[in-house]
Amino acid sequence: MKNEIKIFSPATVANVACGFDVMGFCLDAVGDEMIVKKSAQKGIRITKIEGYDLPLEAEKNVAGVAALALLEDAKPEFGFDIEIYKNIKPGSGIGSSSASASGSVYAINELLGRPYNKTQLSYFAMKGEALASGCEHADNIAPGIFGGFTLVKSIDPLEILEIPTPTELYATIVHPQIEIKTSEARAILPKDIPLQKAITQWANLGSLVHGLHTNDYELISKSLHDVVIEPYRSTLIPYFQEVKALAQKHGALGSGISGSGPSIFILSKGEDIANKVAHAAEALYSKTNLDFNIHVSKINTQGIKTLL
Amino acid sequence: MKNEIKIFSPATVANVACGFDVMGFCLDAVGDEMIVKKSAQKGIRITKIEGYDLPLEAEKNVAGVAALALLEDAKPEFGFDIEIYKNIKPGSGIGSSSASASGSVYAINELLGRPYNKTQLSYFAMKGEALASGCEHADNIAPGIFGGFTLVKSIDPLEILEIPTPTELYATIVHPQIEIKTSEARAILPKDIPLQKAITQWANLGSLVHGLHTNDYELISKSLHDVVIEPYRSTLIPYFQEVKALAQKHGALGSGISGSGPSIFILSKGEDIANKVAHAAEALYSKTNLDFNIHVSKINTQGIKTLL
Repeated sequence: MKNEIKIFSPATVANVACGFDVMGFCLDAVGDEMIVKKSAQKGIRITKIEGYDLPLEAEKNVAGVAALALLEDAKPEFGFDIEIYKNIKPGSGIGSSSASASGSVYAINELLGRPYNKTQLSYFAMKGEALASGCEHADNIAPGIFGGFTLVKSIDPLEILEIPTPTELYATIVHPQIEIKTSEARAILPKDIPLQKAITQWANLGSLVHGLHTNDYELISKSLHDVVIEPYRSTLIPYFQEVKALAQKHGALGSGISGSGPSIFILSKGEDIANKVAHAAEALYSKTNLDFNIHVSKINTQGIKTLL
Repeated sequence: MKNEIKIFSPATVANVACGFDVMGFCLDAVGDEMIVKKSAQKGIRITKIEGYDLPLEAEKNVAGVAALALLEDAKPEFGFDIEIYKNIKPGSGIGSSSASASGSVYAINELLGRPYNKTQLSYFAMKGEALASGCEHADNIAPGIFGGFTLVKSIDPLEILEIPTPTELYATIVHPQIEIKTSEARAILPKDIPLQKAITQWANLGSLVHGLHTNDYELISKSLHDVVIEPYRSTLIPYFQEVKALAQKHGALGSGISGSGPSIFILSKGEDIANKVAHAAEALYSKTNLDFNIHVSKINTQGIKTLL
């Protein structure tokens, strides 16, 4: 059995327009790398973090907390040292904390000989995610660990469904680098919503799931509408409507807020359209004084990958 | 081309627990029969109605109104005489008016040489349904015309999705014969619902669609919950909770209100369980002073059928 592993833990998009709090998909072009080593010393140590300034204490780090949740169950006679090379900016809305939490439990599970299945790993990773977001959710964790599109049917008991991914789907991620506090993104949401809007939303989610099963890109396009959350949260994201408009102009299937933002995701059929959207978004934000990042990525159907 | 046709227009179940206003499925064991004949005289005449007392004037009869909507578009140089043999009791909650509206446009389309597709027929049938319910909806019409499970993604434009039907699914329909006024069933619903309950509902609907695609009976079972509508409308249906409990006791997959009630649907894997549920429900209502009907039916994947 290996004593050391290097992994790639990808960024992910949660919510996916009509699938608030339940749907997610996995990216390929952006992600963190982590090196995890078995150690004679029990427990978890974060020995290195590069890329962003995050706490090294295991109990204060999402990767550490997730790993500790796993160790509490597995009770191995040894421990693990974790190095984190972060590429996903914290607070960008593409599952930065989730990638750390999921990556550490995936790596440790590999080094232990895979005693846990993907749902169990997601459960441990949720414990880390809770440190970052204040509550347990799995809408970024599930696509990272399972790959492709996922639907979190329920949290307790944790039930994750793997929805098929049409092969020509590409995502463009547009990240205007402003800070949206999770607390603010939550406070802006209404406690109650009109029944009619809820019906529209679940009709769209049912259609999206059907469209993913049947490779129906036109139906996927028609389903990618969020009439419940987007009207509120989009007001926090500069040039959101302009990005939506340019995505539509260039023939994308649809777009929406990635997680709670500020990143915006655009789904396209084929890399060509996804690139055109990226270039148009780049031209748009270049005229502003905002820093921004743009990525184009195939949907990653594998999820977290072992590199070495 | 035929000058006369005899058809079977089946009963249907709308809403299907988590799919309020969008999902439906088609029954096989219960339905109306209709005979439609070409006539040299233009327009629509309802020449006979047996079974229940319904208006013979075409403009006041859902079958007539739906047929007239079709004729207004097709503009044939002749007309049609319609005989209706109703077996589905009006107001039972299993799509009685929808069966009349769908049946008449299906039959006329056959006699015209099928100029219209199923979605177009559903559009005309909706015009008839609107006479009965006061608003256009297609959640009973779609499963009747398409068969199997359907999801009405939107009404305007009308978009109907055919969701796969696992072969071992059987429905038990329990109909306590009380009158629930549509207006009352509507008035009892809240205008706004908690966002958290909406999320639970769309997670369940997404899961139901996935479960139907993957023949996952266990997931279908876990998805058949209605946390939004049932708590309100079930109070109008006598012994609703008792029926749910006996369905669960006998191993059914799930249950809920059929349409706006008073009928209750129970879905089971296999005819044996569906029959056990039927017998238990019969024993339950036999002890009351309520009249009731109980049917067991395979899911009808064909929809309306030509008999002669």
